[in-house]
Amino acid sequence: MSRRIRRTPYTDKVIHHGVRGFSVVNHMLLPKAFEPTVEDDYWHLREHVQLWDVSCQRQVEIKGPDAARLVQLMTPRDLRQARVGQGLYIPLIDDRAGMINDPVLLKLSEDRFWLSIADSDVLLWAKGLAIGMALDVEVDEPDVFPLAVQGPKATELMASLFGGGIRDLPYFGFALFDVLGTRQVIARSGYSKQGGYEIYLEGGHLGEDLWDLIWGAGQSLEIRPGCPNLIERIEGGLMSYGNEFTRANNPLECGFGPLCYLGDDLDYIGKKALMEIASSGGPMQRLSGVRFGGDVTPACVKPFPVTSPHGETLGQITSGIYSPRLECNIGLSMILKSHWDHDTPLIVHTPDGQAREGTVSGVPF
Amino acid sequence: MSRRIRRTPYTDKVIHHGVRGFSVVNHMLLPKAFEPTVEDDYWHLREHVQLWDVSCQRQVEIKGPDAARLVQLMTPRDLRQARVGQGLYIPLIDDRAGMINDPVLLKLSEDRFWLSIADSDVLLWAKGLAIGMALDVEVDEPDVFPLAVQGPKATELMASLFGGGIRDLPYFGFALFDVLGTRQVIARSGYSKQGGYEIYLEGGHLGEDLWDLIWGAGQSLEIRPGCPNLIERIEGGLMSYGNEFTRANNPLECGFGPLCYLGDDLDYIGKKALMEIASSGGPMQRLSGVRFGGDVTPACVKPFPVTSPHGETLGQITSGIYSPRLECNIGLSMILKSHWDHDTPLIVHTPDGQAREGTVSGVPF
Repeated sequence: MSRRIRRTPYTDKVIHHGVRGFSVVNHMLLPKAFEPTVEDDYWHLREHVQLWDVSCQRQVEIKGPDAARLVQLMTPRDLRQARVGQGLYIPLIDDRAGMINDPVLLKLSEDRFWLSIADSDVLLWAKGLAIGMALDVEVDEPDVFPLAVQGPKATELMASLFGGGIRDLPYFGFALFDVLGTRQVIARSGYSKQGGYEIYLEGGHLGEDLWDLIWGAGQSLEIRPGCPNLIERIEGGLMSYGNEFTRANNPLECGFGPLCYLGDDLDYIGKKALMEIASSGGPMQRLSGVRFGGDVTPACVKPFPVTSPHGETLGQITSGIYSPRLECNIGLSMILKSHWDHDTPLIVHTPDGQAREGTVSGVPF
Repeated sequence: MSRRIRRTPYTDKVIHHGVRGFSVVNHMLLPKAFEPTVEDDYWHLREHVQLWDVSCQRQVEIKGPDAARLVQLMTPRDLRQARVGQGLYIPLIDDRAGMINDPVLLKLSEDRFWLSIADSDVLLWAKGLAIGMALDVEVDEPDVFPLAVQGPKATELMASLFGGGIRDLPYFGFALFDVLGTRQVIARSGYSKQGGYEIYLEGGHLGEDLWDLIWGAGQSLEIRPGCPNLIERIEGGLMSYGNEFTRANNPLECGFGPLCYLGDDLDYIGKKALMEIASSGGPMQRLSGVRFGGDVTPACVKPFPVTSPHGETLGQITSGIYSPRLECNIGLSMILKSHWDHDTPLIVHTPDGQAREGTVSGVPF
């Protein structure tokens, strides 16, 4: 730990709760595990409610007369109908249609947006474009520290604290709520498929009070501290920038095709490259699920090569783990077009030297 | 570990050598410590020679007809006289003169440059500017993995492997050398003050062979695996982006004044903001050394507040440690102008509750 790898307003709390390690996302600490095993965390997340420090989901704020224009230039998703209060999952691409990030866009007003980002410095990308194009915008990282409440009991917990309006939020919708005497953005969102909310806390000095408020109210609901759970994330098909895809991948490969507008009446960076991919037969590979057998897989600290039964390279599992619910190993991999149909047999090569039989699966698993 | 936090070609080697942990820089692993204590590493580095995996010093390659123009736009340093084969330490700033990074620039040819970066996605910054300005350049991260050989015996070791030309390299100069049957850039540089070299290895598949080559030749010189050493770095006044300075700091505060060209005949991003600071009395604070007493200081995982003896806030120590050679605690801090003269008394507040007497010091200590 150092100043460079930034603490969050909740770091002392998660240390107090016995966090077992941290990862680093956007130059900031992300708790990595609490319970003795990821499996314990997994079952708890599916049944109860957890409190997650996801401050590393930094906000890139873009505001000013040209803000809407800049945001649209950065994504192939058509934002012309976006409404204030709506959160939108948007791929960001470069001029070669390579993925830059996959943030959630929060439209705060007609001329003010937050990009809630995965692990790359979108601020520098947006600022570079804005300066290069002489756009009339300000690009900054505000003092906002998301805290997530995830799990099936999240709605009950959040409504008890912040009122019935919590129940009315549509998936990915957000609104302002009274929180500790301030007005704060709360969204129905989060990096799990168990349902939940994210409080975009503005003002780090309120962090510990907010943590304590939710923690106290959650006692009767068996609340625990948590963090994105690898089993649950893979089962849910939730991708992670830098793992499942990088700047070497285009959004069509990532399954973002439905989010890519290719009509004539909209322009954005990378559109030409994207049109070329689309018009020349589409992507050559696609992000897929893989079920595979054998013993419980070793940790996927290096990608696992995936081949056909005849030995042709098809892809690599970039996130993989044993699912105690599905009672098999599961992973996420780009798979070449020739083999991407569901149930296609393939072989997963794990670092313990095993060649494991598997099949292509849809996601969520 | 995961794919997102990238391994290097040397990661298996450093694990084999008993690395005691990793940090993350530029989404890549940086070994953190080897010997039982940082102090053991320190004394060894000052006497012998060490091999450091600094692959996280990623290269941002900028090439093409507009490459020189783009690089100049990104820095206040006057690059008009830069020569091929010369490495230049250059601050990168944004439109408000905030620090973006402090890379070493390697001028490979008149239209091809590498920026050997600290911890921020300079690639996205450069690419955003290039696209925004429609410049004729390519911006990419090549397959280059720097390996550093540091310490007083580095020249002897490197010359034994790569020839007498190693001895002729000026400080920060670089040239191409024969390495494992390939031609590779070797520079006289590194993140220590003990002298040494960095091999900018192109082609990760050669990584383990290169490690073994140097390791073998270094046996008679007591070579050890190592990494940037916190005691040595602070003693040497070597700053770390994200620790000592961020986008909230301008280059004049960081001591980069001599690298900032303010003449009329050169333009770059942030020049107007920099001129305003310079013409309104200069920076309000300056990166300084601080010597402070009391017991051996606790680890500086959060900045230590620095005040005057009367309690006025003067700055914060962002990197601090006990120096066994100087026999006192030392740190780096921005210090307000009113108190930045050497030997000015001040108080350092460490998290163990102690208020320690100290003084402002020049750097290197």
